[in-house]
Amino acid sequence: MKKNYMFTPGPTMVPAEVMLAEAEPIIHHRTPQFSEILKEVGEGLRELFGTDRDVYIVTGTGTASMEAAVANTCSPGDKAICVRGGKFGERWSEIASAYRCNVVDEDLEWGRSFSPERAAELLSQHPDAKILCITHSETSTGALTDVEAIAGLTRKSGTLLIVDGITSVGVHRVEMDKWGVDIIVSGSQKGCMVPPGLSFIAASERAWEAIQSSSSPRYYLDMRAMKKNWSDYQTPYTGPVSLIRALRKALEMMREEGLENLYERHRRLAEASRAAMKAIGLNLVADNPVNGVTSVHAPDGIDTGKLTKKMRDEYGVTIAGGQGHLKGKIFRIGHMGYVCKEDLLVCISAVERALKELGYDFEFGAGVSAAHSALFGVHLT
Amino acid sequence: MKKNYMFTPGPTMVPAEVMLAEAEPIIHHRTPQFSEILKEVGEGLRELFGTDRDVYIVTGTGTASMEAAVANTCSPGDKAICVRGGKFGERWSEIASAYRCNVVDEDLEWGRSFSPERAAELLSQHPDAKILCITHSETSTGALTDVEAIAGLTRKSGTLLIVDGITSVGVHRVEMDKWGVDIIVSGSQKGCMVPPGLSFIAASERAWEAIQSSSSPRYYLDMRAMKKNWSDYQTPYTGPVSLIRALRKALEMMREEGLENLYERHRRLAEASRAAMKAIGLNLVADNPVNGVTSVHAPDGIDTGKLTKKMRDEYGVTIAGGQGHLKGKIFRIGHMGYVCKEDLLVCISAVERALKELGYDFEFGAGVSAAHSALFGVHLT
Repeated sequence: MKKNYMFTPGPTMVPAEVMLAEAEPIIHHRTPQFSEILKEVGEGLRELFGTDRDVYIVTGTGTASMEAAVANTCSPGDKAICVRGGKFGERWSEIASAYRCNVVDEDLEWGRSFSPERAAELLSQHPDAKILCITHSETSTGALTDVEAIAGLTRKSGTLLIVDGITSVGVHRVEMDKWGVDIIVSGSQKGCMVPPGLSFIAASERAWEAIQSSSSPRYYLDMRAMKKNWSDYQTPYTGPVSLIRALRKALEMMREEGLENLYERHRRLAEASRAAMKAIGLNLVADNPVNGVTSVHAPDGIDTGKLTKKMRDEYGVTIAGGQGHLKGKIFRIGHMGYVCKEDLLVCISAVERALKELGYDFEFGAGVSAAHSALFGVHLT
Repeated sequence: MKKNYMFTPGPTMVPAEVMLAEAEPIIHHRTPQFSEILKEVGEGLRELFGTDRDVYIVTGTGTASMEAAVANTCSPGDKAICVRGGKFGERWSEIASAYRCNVVDEDLEWGRSFSPERAAELLSQHPDAKILCITHSETSTGALTDVEAIAGLTRKSGTLLIVDGITSVGVHRVEMDKWGVDIIVSGSQKGCMVPPGLSFIAASERAWEAIQSSSSPRYYLDMRAMKKNWSDYQTPYTGPVSLIRALRKALEMMREEGLENLYERHRRLAEASRAAMKAIGLNLVADNPVNGVTSVHAPDGIDTGKLTKKMRDEYGVTIAGGQGHLKGKIFRIGHMGYVCKEDLLVCISAVERALKELGYDFEFGAGVSAAHSALFGVHLT
């Protein structure tokens, strides 16, 4: 018997309860029944985003909502500061360029976090910047950004703070309103434990001023249409009924766990993953790591393409390799969403076996043991 | 006991086999396993589109692919002729306007079909038109357009023919290559019997020349990225794994039925619906009706909002009302996708009961009887 486990930074594992909700017989989207579901889902998303604003649902992956954030706030020529500390930070820059923004790229070594100090410098150098685009949890490197501190700066400036929360929402506490974030986007297939296909976006009051005046072409991603339809708990185009029902179930499960417990679980999973990797002599990619994914430098001479393939095809355990220039050089253990403490032991065990088979020399079992202690050590005291 | 039936022109009923495929445990999209599925699905879509070109899958509803068609071919100022004979024809015009095209609106009375003769006139008046946007099956009115004849004109001109095939693909025969259509788009939740969330788009060789040179901003819907990724059977962003698996199952069922049988089934369902409505004294909205939906003028004094609500809430049978200025005045019976002949009797029966309860005077049972004869009359001969 071989069970399949996914420890990928999205899509992530989907609870059977959510799969079955997705499989329920279809209903029509222009019905009070569907609006009732959207309303409930909207409440759940507001909790996760930490906002009283409406959170709109886009039929499309996280990138669609990232594009919506830029296209709805910027007109051609507007200055956009894009922090590029990984593949997803680079995406901000690509989108802003596609929309003919005057792009100021802030390049970081992959794995480093964008600091509030540097944010202050940039905001003072570019007081005319329309938007500052950052990545809360940079999935390609596992680096965390201090969104709260940066929002403390942008809220006092004329620059809108746009945050990619795709792998942070549902993993880390997000407080859009309290922190003063202007736009935050997320996706279904990460912390929210739902298959890919949905993304979410919410905007502050001052972001809405920009949205009303942007001259960039947009239709499917026009947030004005989203807002207009949401007032009746509707979507501008056909509502993605099955994925929305899956999301309703997932949000219900998250509420049952309790958001505090959920964030604490992710913190423990991340801590245990890091402890395990250190115990087998490996180094982390990120200085200030996120709780949804652990990025690890492979031992010299080991191609992580081979590592991930062996794990997936031979052990049924899927993790991710590196992206961009880190392809083949790092591996990434996703532990977001539907991952319990016990699951993580399965993952660390598989990593150890694959590394051993590929010739890396280390104390076999040290990773599993370290993870076990970090996860369950409370029983010893 | 009350079963729920959907006779809506999208989303349509989803076979249990497809729902269960959608509910299968998630796999990662950047895997050979997912590429294998995409390849198979791509083959099925090519058959439905009648093309040797690749058909790309967009995570987004049909409107997203409509926007992709315009944004990828037109630069601001390009002339776009948009045929507006219903809500979905109007959408072409709205999208082209959003992208700052020089829009030539061709307005038709709702229910009339755009004729090849009028197309010839427009093409000769506007030889500089970059695109002509038409609707194969106008879902809001049930009017069919002769795409083959119009493509015979555009292929000899410098104007690209862009076709909304959202409710025609999988219902009517579509021969993109033979007819010479430049771009055709469709969606998952219509003839393809899959929940909403996916759309499909394919482009001719000469459309690709326009795509390479369009200067409109686009990122998520950039067809160049779709093409690049499709060469490895991949999607530019996270693949919508569960919906794609649902689609694979649905395409397999369509292939088992046989496309000829499938088109013939839709023809019979449409013929029977029309016969039933005429038998109870009602008039059709469309002169030249499509086979996926039958649009019917309500009897004087009957609000179709009340009719559809009664049918849905009391009988469990969902049909659609009118859109735009026909709201309340017409009703629409969807019979596309997972609708068998027997199902249609259920629908006609419910329409008769609701009309009778709302006070319309007609020979009760005449519709069901006419439908029955049209569907199963072969047994009499």
